[in-house]
Amino acid sequence: MNNIILCGGSGTRLWPLSRTMLPKQFVKIFGEKSLFQMTEERNRRLCSSSLIVCNAEQFFLASDQLEESSKAVFLLEPIGRNTAPAIALACMLLEPEEIVLVTASDHLIKKQSAYEEAVKTAENLARQDYLVTFGITPDYPETGYGYIEADGADVLRFKEKPAMEKAERYMHANAKLAAKNLPAKYLWNSGMFCFKAGVFLDELKKYSPAIFETSAAALNNKVTVQERQYRIKHEDMLAIPADSIDYAVMEKSDRVKVVPCDIGWSDLGSFDSLYAETEAGENGNSVIAYSEGSPELVCVDSTDNLVISSERQIALVDIEGLLVVDTSDALLISKKGSSQKVKAVTEAIKKLKPELTETHRFVHRPWGTYEVLLESSRYKIKRIVVKTGRKLSLQKHFHRSEHWVVVSGTATVTVGDKRFYVHPNESTYIPAGQVHRLENEGKVDLAMIEVQVGEYVGEDDIVRIDDIYGR
Amino acid sequence: MNNIILCGGSGTRLWPLSRTMLPKQFVKIFGEKSLFQMTEERNRRLCSSSLIVCNAEQFFLASDQLEESSKAVFLLEPIGRNTAPAIALACMLLEPEEIVLVTASDHLIKKQSAYEEAVKTAENLARQDYLVTFGITPDYPETGYGYIEADGADVLRFKEKPAMEKAERYMHANAKLAAKNLPAKYLWNSGMFCFKAGVFLDELKKYSPAIFETSAAALNNKVTVQERQYRIKHEDMLAIPADSIDYAVMEKSDRVKVVPCDIGWSDLGSFDSLYAETEAGENGNSVIAYSEGSPELVCVDSTDNLVISSERQIALVDIEGLLVVDTSDALLISKKGSSQKVKAVTEAIKKLKPELTETHRFVHRPWGTYEVLLESSRYKIKRIVVKTGRKLSLQKHFHRSEHWVVVSGTATVTVGDKRFYVHPNESTYIPAGQVHRLENEGKVDLAMIEVQVGEYVGEDDIVRIDDIYGR
Repeated sequence: MNNIILCGGSGTRLWPLSRTMLPKQFVKIFGEKSLFQMTEERNRRLCSSSLIVCNAEQFFLASDQLEESSKAVFLLEPIGRNTAPAIALACMLLEPEEIVLVTASDHLIKKQSAYEEAVKTAENLARQDYLVTFGITPDYPETGYGYIEADGADVLRFKEKPAMEKAERYMHANAKLAAKNLPAKYLWNSGMFCFKAGVFLDELKKYSPAIFETSAAALNNKVTVQERQYRIKHEDMLAIPADSIDYAVMEKSDRVKVVPCDIGWSDLGSFDSLYAETEAGENGNSVIAYSEGSPELVCVDSTDNLVISSERQIALVDIEGLLVVDTSDALLISKKGSSQKVKAVTEAIKKLKPELTETHRFVHRPWGTYEVLLESSRYKIKRIVVKTGRKLSLQKHFHRSEHWVVVSGTATVTVGDKRFYVHPNESTYIPAGQVHRLENEGKVDLAMIEVQVGEYVGEDDIVRIDDIYGR
Repeated sequence: MNNIILCGGSGTRLWPLSRTMLPKQFVKIFGEKSLFQMTEERNRRLCSSSLIVCNAEQFFLASDQLEESSKAVFLLEPIGRNTAPAIALACMLLEPEEIVLVTASDHLIKKQSAYEEAVKTAENLARQDYLVTFGITPDYPETGYGYIEADGADVLRFKEKPAMEKAERYMHANAKLAAKNLPAKYLWNSGMFCFKAGVFLDELKKYSPAIFETSAAALNNKVTVQERQYRIKHEDMLAIPADSIDYAVMEKSDRVKVVPCDIGWSDLGSFDSLYAETEAGENGNSVIAYSEGSPELVCVDSTDNLVISSERQIALVDIEGLLVVDTSDALLISKKGSSQKVKAVTEAIKKLKPELTETHRFVHRPWGTYEVLLESSRYKIKRIVVKTGRKLSLQKHFHRSEHWVVVSGTATVTVGDKRFYVHPNESTYIPAGQVHRLENEGKVDLAMIEVQVGEYVGEDDIVRIDDIYGR
């Protein structure tokens, strides 16, 4: 089996934890591993290969989170066109008889063995040329998910996100059946699928021929960036109609089957659903400390809160039922149960300070990471980490000079015609206008502090003369 | 008249805005001026001189907030012994016939002309050898203040902080009198006083002779640090019994009078009282942005909150009646009306991370300020500002080297035998073990970035060879 991992996501629902440039699948919410890494690992046990469909800008984020030995294939989209085109493009890279397991990259699945069992059931159905979807037995009347009305493995119909009353009716119907030891009739549509690549493409061609044709043309015209890495061209992607796999194929095809399952699934689509998956500590307060050395939460007469903290000390006094999400440049405080409204927050902030919806102060780059420590109109301080073997572009700046102090690792620095090493506790200076390059030829990460000084210190004052990442 | 300004304060009630090393009188809560500056300015119109009693560690904080032309006299206490000794020591610096106006440094007084009138009334009574206290006409049944039971200018008795029921009875009694156009009987004890220095000392000698004797000895043994700056020795201060002026003198003396007044007074003793003094914006949300360029608060369906913000973007969703206090290293979220419990928070944090109750990341020093931008086990980044004409100690470090990049102003740097200038966009390097000094001989502030690198970067790795501030 081939695992297609869909890595889209706009990074708005878990803002400020997630941002456009760091959607939630790449955030290490549950400790050492990101949801993307957990997904890849979970499916590695079931699939012999994986095909990752992600935004071109996030390729390095995703590939840096994979093990070095990974043979995953990347399909890079310049823009997102929803799930139907993403899955179609991926299937077109495969042989028609190959079976694919399509999964999101940002869902949580807690019951691994039930999951594996469900996938095996789905795989069997897929071999019989069915398009298989996974239906999650609901725990509660969620109104944020679509439902599948099922009769065993047969799909009677797909149901839109219901109002609360209807969702409760579904739960009631399920409960009645459960009392008779019968399987649930109303299932959550999980967005996971299993089918033969060719069968899916045939059905897509039949029911949404425009998506099929434009996707085929786009794939045909793809750019091979390097081994196992393909990029769709922007204009080709634009030509593909955006649609979800549910609308484009599943709701229309008569080859659809469902595997009802209870696999401890959550789409973590809001802080409330994240809260539901977090173990409560003392007095019902949950803490997710996503940076090392987060100080202990101080609670005075406070209960039933979810606090996501970074370096800052947080103290609560007489607080009940709040979600507190603290990052280095933005703080969200929401009542529990209201986290769907976070969307209104990101919309407001897009107008006020759009950069806060796009990046963190800690930024991933193809060559490593940087963090802005201080920014003023005439200088900027960054901590820069260059991974072993990586190099920044050969570049120059019109308006700023740069002072570099190496704190660990060894920098190979090019300035004009000269090329030299800078060791820990040594520094160098790059005058404005001078062509320069920073490399890490060493075996350990290079960490350095950069002090930029100049009349303008914006990120866009950069002229790239050469770049191994094609920027 | 001589204004004695009491500058004690432990910096715990408005934590994390205030800290031990930056009590609330020095925080610029209401914009450009601190409460200390507002106090000094307010009384400069009434008094010909001022005498500031403050902790020795905070001398530079206070003197930096005064105008350069200020002729204020400083009396520095190594430790606090409450108000009676502080006022006694100050009075002993003056002639017995001099009239003093004793004020806190961290109270808010909004009605300046009513205040001036009240002070003039008090001054007249003080000339007649009375000890005069100021009684504030209460607006509401506050349980956090002591009360004065008055009959016109006569004090019938001092009342401890009342329970709510009793506080309400006081209000009721006042209302009845007000209906008959009679003055209030129960007044808040404001902690402001007016009397002849000699009269106060006579009464202190009579009712609390131990305080009088030990204070006289301590003052006699004082150190003259420089012109208009006296320091009490630690052992002398320790010998003085700690007591408030109310217990030590006012509640015992029969020379006490009260000036009832309505001067828009608040002691700002909690975030709730701060909230009461803050103008509410849209939907009852108040914002105090205490650092420049604070982003606009984003509110979704949120009402009646007080947000004290610094650089971080803050967003509220479905939040009502909260106090949110955000600083660069600590965040407090409290229900409105519960801010008295902040004390429990600071007690907990004293055990967990005591440095957070002592200093901010932004630290005041005799020579200027510094801010820690990043700290790890092997390096530390600081932004350092040296005020014009100031210099750091001649010093060395065993474990760390320092890289200095000047971003504005000019540094005069001594390293070993050499002395040289470092201009903006220039850098220099101080190897570990090397004796060095940083000075600003220029006419504008010097700002520079320091990158410390070494096996240990704690503040205590410093050997001072010479220091103009006697450290």
